[in-house]
Amino acid sequence: MSNDSLFTVEEWSIREKELHLDALAQTESLFALSNGHIGLRGNFDEGDPHGLPGTYLNSFYELRPLPYAEGGYAYPESGQTVINVTNGKLIRLLVDDAPFDVRYGTLLEHERELDLRNGVLRRSIHWTSPAGRTVKISSVRMVSFTQRAIAAICYEVEPVDAPVRIVVQSELVANEALPPQSKDPRVGAALESALECEEHQAHDASGMLIHHTRVSGLRMGAAMDHHVEGPPGITVTSTSSPDVARVSIIGRLRPGERLRIVKFIAYGWSSLRSRPAIHDQIIAALAAARQTSWEGLLAEQQAYLQDFWATADIELEGDPQIQQAIRFALFHVLQAGARAEGRPIAAKGLTGPGYDGHAFWDTEIFVLPVLTHTLPTAAADALRWRHLILDKAREQAQQLRLYGAAFPWRTIRGAECSGYWPAGTAAFHINADIAYAVTYYLQATGDMTFEEEVGLELLVETARLWCSLGYHHPTTNQFRIDGVTGPDEYSAIADNNVYTNLMAQHNLRWAVEAVQRHPEKAQALGVDSHEAASWHMAAKHMLIPYNAQLEVTPQDESFIDYQVWDFTGTLPHQYPLLLNFPYFDLYRKQVVKQADLILAMHLRSDAFTPEQKARNFAYYESLTVRDSSLSACTQAVMAAEVGQLELAYDYLGEAALVDLHDLHHNVQSGLHMASLAGAWLALVAGFGGMRVQNGALYFSPCLPNALERLAFRLLFQDRHISLEITPTAATYRLLDGLPLRVHHHGETFTLALDEPATYPIAPIQAGPRPSQPVGRAPARRSERL
Amino acid sequence: MSNDSLFTVEEWSIREKELHLDALAQTESLFALSNGHIGLRGNFDEGDPHGLPGTYLNSFYELRPLPYAEGGYAYPESGQTVINVTNGKLIRLLVDDAPFDVRYGTLLEHERELDLRNGVLRRSIHWTSPAGRTVKISSVRMVSFTQRAIAAICYEVEPVDAPVRIVVQSELVANEALPPQSKDPRVGAALESALECEEHQAHDASGMLIHHTRVSGLRMGAAMDHHVEGPPGITVTSTSSPDVARVSIIGRLRPGERLRIVKFIAYGWSSLRSRPAIHDQIIAALAAARQTSWEGLLAEQQAYLQDFWATADIELEGDPQIQQAIRFALFHVLQAGARAEGRPIAAKGLTGPGYDGHAFWDTEIFVLPVLTHTLPTAAADALRWRHLILDKAREQAQQLRLYGAAFPWRTIRGAECSGYWPAGTAAFHINADIAYAVTYYLQATGDMTFEEEVGLELLVETARLWCSLGYHHPTTNQFRIDGVTGPDEYSAIADNNVYTNLMAQHNLRWAVEAVQRHPEKAQALGVDSHEAASWHMAAKHMLIPYNAQLEVTPQDESFIDYQVWDFTGTLPHQYPLLLNFPYFDLYRKQVVKQADLILAMHLRSDAFTPEQKARNFAYYESLTVRDSSLSACTQAVMAAEVGQLELAYDYLGEAALVDLHDLHHNVQSGLHMASLAGAWLALVAGFGGMRVQNGALYFSPCLPNALERLAFRLLFQDRHISLEITPTAATYRLLDGLPLRVHHHGETFTLALDEPATYPIAPIQAGPRPSQPVGRAPARRSERL
Repeated sequence: MSNDSLFTVEEWSIREKELHLDALAQTESLFALSNGHIGLRGNFDEGDPHGLPGTYLNSFYELRPLPYAEGGYAYPESGQTVINVTNGKLIRLLVDDAPFDVRYGTLLEHERELDLRNGVLRRSIHWTSPAGRTVKISSVRMVSFTQRAIAAICYEVEPVDAPVRIVVQSELVANEALPPQSKDPRVGAALESALECEEHQAHDASGMLIHHTRVSGLRMGAAMDHHVEGPPGITVTSTSSPDVARVSIIGRLRPGERLRIVKFIAYGWSSLRSRPAIHDQIIAALAAARQTSWEGLLAEQQAYLQDFWATADIELEGDPQIQQAIRFALFHVLQAGARAEGRPIAAKGLTGPGYDGHAFWDTEIFVLPVLTHTLPTAAADALRWRHLILDKAREQAQQLRLYGAAFPWRTIRGAECSGYWPAGTAAFHINADIAYAVTYYLQATGDMTFEEEVGLELLVETARLWCSLGYHHPTTNQFRIDGVTGPDEYSAIADNNVYTNLMAQHNLRWAVEAVQRHPEKAQALGVDSHEAASWHMAAKHMLIPYNAQLEVTPQDESFIDYQVWDFTGTLPHQYPLLLNFPYFDLYRKQVVKQADLILAMHLRSDAFTPEQKARNFAYYESLTVRDSSLSACTQAVMAAEVGQLELAYDYLGEAALVDLHDLHHNVQSGLHMASLAGAWLALVAGFGGMRVQNGALYFSPCLPNALERLAFRLLFQDRHISLEITPTAATYRLLDGLPLRVHHHGETFTLALDEPATYPIAPIQAGPRPSQPVGRAPARRSERL
Repeated sequence: MSNDSLFTVEEWSIREKELHLDALAQTESLFALSNGHIGLRGNFDEGDPHGLPGTYLNSFYELRPLPYAEGGYAYPESGQTVINVTNGKLIRLLVDDAPFDVRYGTLLEHERELDLRNGVLRRSIHWTSPAGRTVKISSVRMVSFTQRAIAAICYEVEPVDAPVRIVVQSELVANEALPPQSKDPRVGAALESALECEEHQAHDASGMLIHHTRVSGLRMGAAMDHHVEGPPGITVTSTSSPDVARVSIIGRLRPGERLRIVKFIAYGWSSLRSRPAIHDQIIAALAAARQTSWEGLLAEQQAYLQDFWATADIELEGDPQIQQAIRFALFHVLQAGARAEGRPIAAKGLTGPGYDGHAFWDTEIFVLPVLTHTLPTAAADALRWRHLILDKAREQAQQLRLYGAAFPWRTIRGAECSGYWPAGTAAFHINADIAYAVTYYLQATGDMTFEEEVGLELLVETARLWCSLGYHHPTTNQFRIDGVTGPDEYSAIADNNVYTNLMAQHNLRWAVEAVQRHPEKAQALGVDSHEAASWHMAAKHMLIPYNAQLEVTPQDESFIDYQVWDFTGTLPHQYPLLLNFPYFDLYRKQVVKQADLILAMHLRSDAFTPEQKARNFAYYESLTVRDSSLSACTQAVMAAEVGQLELAYDYLGEAALVDLHDLHHNVQSGLHMASLAGAWLALVAGFGGMRVQNGALYFSPCLPNALERLAFRLLFQDRHISLEITPTAATYRLLDGLPLRVHHHGETFTLALDEPATYPIAPIQAGPRPSQPVGRAPARRSERL
């Protein structure tokens, strides 16, 4: 079902006022809480009913075999898969002799609210049991941004019309049974009973379970403690067994009385630390949380978010749905990255098991630019994780008989987990994408320490890769990169993919410059002038194909000679095409799953003239089916740049609502972090026209008809900047820091503290609206308002 | 180990005079007997020791799952795999209380001989048991060409120096334990305990087992009966259990006395017929064989082979090793195809489990032309098998959203069993290869009934495939076939592979002509003039890339722009490259596993000028590493055509000795039928220069220095023809039938019965010998003689 009508449209909340059992798995993803370290899906406290139970710890994985019908050299034999760890959010309730379950009895009221300003998930229930006892239940759940190991729940029950006996069982449960796995290859593999118990205990109101994974050998612990308030006569007991620790809270309540339980949950894991060390670590975290108290945790959470929104908020007038969606998006991007701290930001954050919990290239291209301007330490941390897995990437390059580092296409802790190399290992652009995120971060922050400690080595090792991957053609001297896969997954193993070559060029150029800035460190990395010169020459002679006849940039050298996909002969239910046509056929036709050349025009804006951009945009619009969520936002950005503002607005809608409206029908396995971040890009890089080039900030603001005002804030080189756009003018404000040169529609000015600068926006004359493949045009945003 | 010295060089035998236990698995393949229906590996009668036990029935398979780390649309979920069926060749021997096993006691003499004129495998043993009893054992084994369901063994034992008690256990054994499977993907998957018993019985000197496969549900039966001769007092008893039927023959022999046992074995299988039907079928076959008697079977076998050699023999003076090898090769090609009768000829015949027992394109391109000239009914039968699986091929086309028929890349009974589509399903040339074999057969036989019944539909359905697979480019009108894989498996998913496009062109042209010859049948197949015209236009405008700068035909449109493989940086142990480098890297470089463009120059000789052939040959010689056994023979043919006779001779040696000398180190899993057939091609199409074009026979004979005489015979349009080549002249003879126009080095003459025609051979002035990648030149044949 579409989630279109599941939620009320509000500025700062996602509120569900009616229970849709058939959308449980979707809402569990949407209501997921995370701090980048712990992730709790929005499962009901009582566990049942559920769509998909999910509790995750960033980078805590099990290995599963990767089988092949026909093997090949260097195919990975096993893959890292995120697993559902010990569930600490379980609070079961017995009302007299009836277990509380919304599927039985009468649900008089149901409300869930994801509060984006306070960082909590609230739930309130008014329920009559099958035996006729009515209770009100409320729970507030959080995963703390300030205490990384901690989640907490405040759970309250009160009888409405008659005394009842209440039994609350608050649990830690390992190895929960999971629903059977989908056949869709994009859904992660469920791994059953992956955890083996090392320690279990319970006493008073507390409990603890320590387990390790059977194959990957990682160790994790979960502990809980409770603060119980209620009328006299409440008893608390506890038990434990290898996979369950249970605290039972029993009492009788009369109307007007209330049982209030605060459950503190601590998680810890390590690949190295001993059982006693993990034990002590979670006990310590739990003690600190108890001392902070529920109210203290709430206050810390609110303060943390106040800071975040002060830096990152976006205001939008004229489209409350998008206003809500963009804050939802930013909140989840924050949740995915805030406290990852040297661990990856996965494609689905910690909201579900989709894509096996792997991180891909899109973190660097879509998510990190957003974090760079809103929470730069999180962006730096994510890149530090890449730096941490450099050894694995160097090993991978060696195994592929290449130089430098070849980062895995998909991974949790550095090992290549791609089981289909044409759309995995061959997509070498990920290395240039990481380099791009490094250069973006460096330009936006000026963080030279990071360049020396982390950035330089990443740039050097990826530059080395490109030099061994490409070669100078003996007669033309052009630098060719043959047989690789670009972002568009409906093409593969193509020669001189323009995106790849332009991004590699950028990578090589930056490596040359970084080496000049850090000669000593460069020498320590073994770079000599000869090697740097080879990067320079490769960049200089990089082959960028161009079709002079059509005046269009081909996606790769052969693309434009291919037959155009038979769009008119393709039925609506045959999308996504990859589920209905062989890769063989997709690869050899002109059909684009997701922005590829269009993304190149965004990220390498300098490499195209405005006329080329407009022609290319129109050409690829007619071929792009958007079977990937990594497309609409980029199409929004480039549509805005070529003046197609209404089209850009439509794509903004698609990017921003991808999860709230479940546009790809797979929200149940997790949110699409890159598309959520892409909604920010669609607004800031699209309607704001923001580009960062040569360390400077460029804007070309403009608005579609429906929007009356767009205001956003961002960090740039240690300064808070705000931009307020109306249909006719843009006002720039520097909120702190030293004056800064800024570009508005090609005009340069200096922005200083307390000196807002307002510039007019000229009306844009765009050509006709480009058309999309039949049936694949984005929903018209203007028509639904 | 190399088998170089395993055998004596003889004209009509492969004889092993010493036992090499470490080469058992190889010799079992080399000594395999088959009639194309039953295949028995050359395992010792007593079962132990063995390299790899093997008994096969053509097309009797089990299904095994084909797993994928990442699935995709239309990937086959299971694969057909040839299985080791009930072993009927087991005859165990107890000498007093010691089991006869060559690894114990003393082996005084050991000899095995594959007799190519009589079609039997002989073995003689002189052995002293650990307890000091000496016996002579001999066995003669055959798989009958004339009684398709029958194999037979004549087994004799006699004591040498003292009386002994002899126990002979002659068995049928199902579900034999097999050695663990290799990790090399080219080795077939062993399937254990695939057979489930339906019936077992034994009485007197006979036994029977009927089983079915667990998953594929095929039913097979094996039965045995014995004729026993010996001194008085021999007793015969029998027992059976679900997987074993055993006849025990016990007696005391004194020196001078002999026990002689003739074992008749009958096999039958069916996917449809009931247990009683199979039961009766094998009993009937057994009865017929008994009535024929051992001597009768021997006589029939010899007569059959006499006919074959009278048609097919090749005589070679100057190289006894190749003389032996070519007869060995022809014998095995005959064994693979003789009685297949509507079933495929697998890549390894019925000599081992390699490649899962699948048939590929090379049967049509290498094996069928040889059979067409030596046993044309077998060639026709193999193509009838393709006709039988047309429905499956049509289904496959439909699933791939194409028209006509898409034959499986690898299969036993028609289902696509390829688990890696870039080197499987994408290799669409197999369809043109089947069409080519049809046209070759039609030209060489003039069999118009076959064209109407079988050929036409194959040509029509494959032409339809090409028309839906390619398209006319909108501006150039050239017919492009993008994103397919040609014969060279170190390239894949390439645009306009020249081999594919030329073969498709041939296919389309022949379809147009065949439709004109059979208008009614064509109409019944739904072909109208519009469709035939579309084939004509596709053929006419077929894109054949050419690199004018280098004056070379590129293997595909992009190939020549790729970096040349770093041959000097590749170490000898890194071949075959596919086991040491990723496909990714192989596909994007100029490196050729096996003849591709070179094969196109052989099969589409008309599409290249002599100068182009010479330039192309030299260009691809420098890139071809021959990691496939499907290369040397074609290189021999084209080397001869461009006048590089010594090089052609070296390649002949490699093709002919591929199995006898185990050049690819994998003979243990079966013989390389295409390379064996290729040895014939190297001689006849190479040094004979034979081409069949437009229904006519062309020769351009020539000899390398070492050969004094080459004489071969072949069938052409119902005539037996012989050609005798000496260094200076060629003599043509028509042995029966009507006069025929023949071409000798471009000169046309009429060949008539009893009128031998002798033509001189001019000395050839060839350019310098082309060079191969470092370390990959073929062994110099002239240096070893």
